[in-house]
Amino acid sequence: MSKDWLDDVAWNADGLVPAVAQDADSGEVLMLAWMSRESLARTAETREATYWSRSRKAIWKKGETSGHLQKVVEIRLDCDADTVLLRVESVAGIACHTGRRRCFFNLLEGAGGSARWVATDPVLAEPGTFRDG
Amino acid sequence: MSKDWLDDVAWNADGLVPAVAQDADSGEVLMLAWMSRESLARTAETREATYWSRSRKAIWKKGETSGHLQKVVEIRLDCDADTVLLRVESVAGIACHTGRRRCFFNLLEGAGGSARWVATDPVLAEPGTFRDG
Repeated sequence: MSKDWLDDVAWNADGLVPAVAQDADSGEVLMLAWMSRESLARTAETREATYWSRSRKAIWKKGETSGHLQKVVEIRLDCDADTVLLRVESVAGIACHTGRRRCFFNLLEGAGGSARWVATDPVLAEPGTFRDG
Repeated sequence: MSKDWLDDVAWNADGLVPAVAQDADSGEVLMLAWMSRESLARTAETREATYWSRSRKAIWKKGETSGHLQKVVEIRLDCDADTVLLRVESVAGIACHTGRRRCFFNLLEGAGGSARWVATDPVLAEPGTFRDG
């Protein structure tokens, strides 16, 4: 491993890696977002999850506008160093911009041609009452 | 949502989406791999996790050579439809090609300039005694 732990990360051609956020208490997988070198450095320094918004092309501190911060308990890197895993405490228990506790609320039900995605999780806060970011 | 559930997925420019595999029993996040349309279709049909190997540019059924299959309990899609979450039963309890139960065995320890990645998980099967894919 390198002198600088950030050099150990296998950044992709855009200088990013995917980061999975997992609830430290429930174990629930909350979301996947992307990180730049700077956002990972800030995450480690501040212990608050900070991502890279590919649409806005900007550093994006999770919960900066919504208040739904993610306090980082643990930062992990996978075997080929191209994916980050964060174990986080999800403030207000809401990780998704739709106001749900996690982004993975679409469950595949049924099989074959009749399979479809069904939303399974309740909306805890009306989108529009906050903005995330 | 579309008639064909596969059309609801926001495939990237390469026709892929990241897929996170989570242990259905322990809740542990095991790995992240990529899926093509065909690998997701096969995963749903066979209920065995099937990915796309970006290095080999080929469909890759997890455990095909190692025996470390992932039996799929649940398939989820996130809010913007560009990430898949699988809840799986990990055969033999090994998801990583290094012989560990999960790929995220590198933990960031320390802070600032002295931070470093430390391997935390035991090797359960010697790599070389199996090959994965």
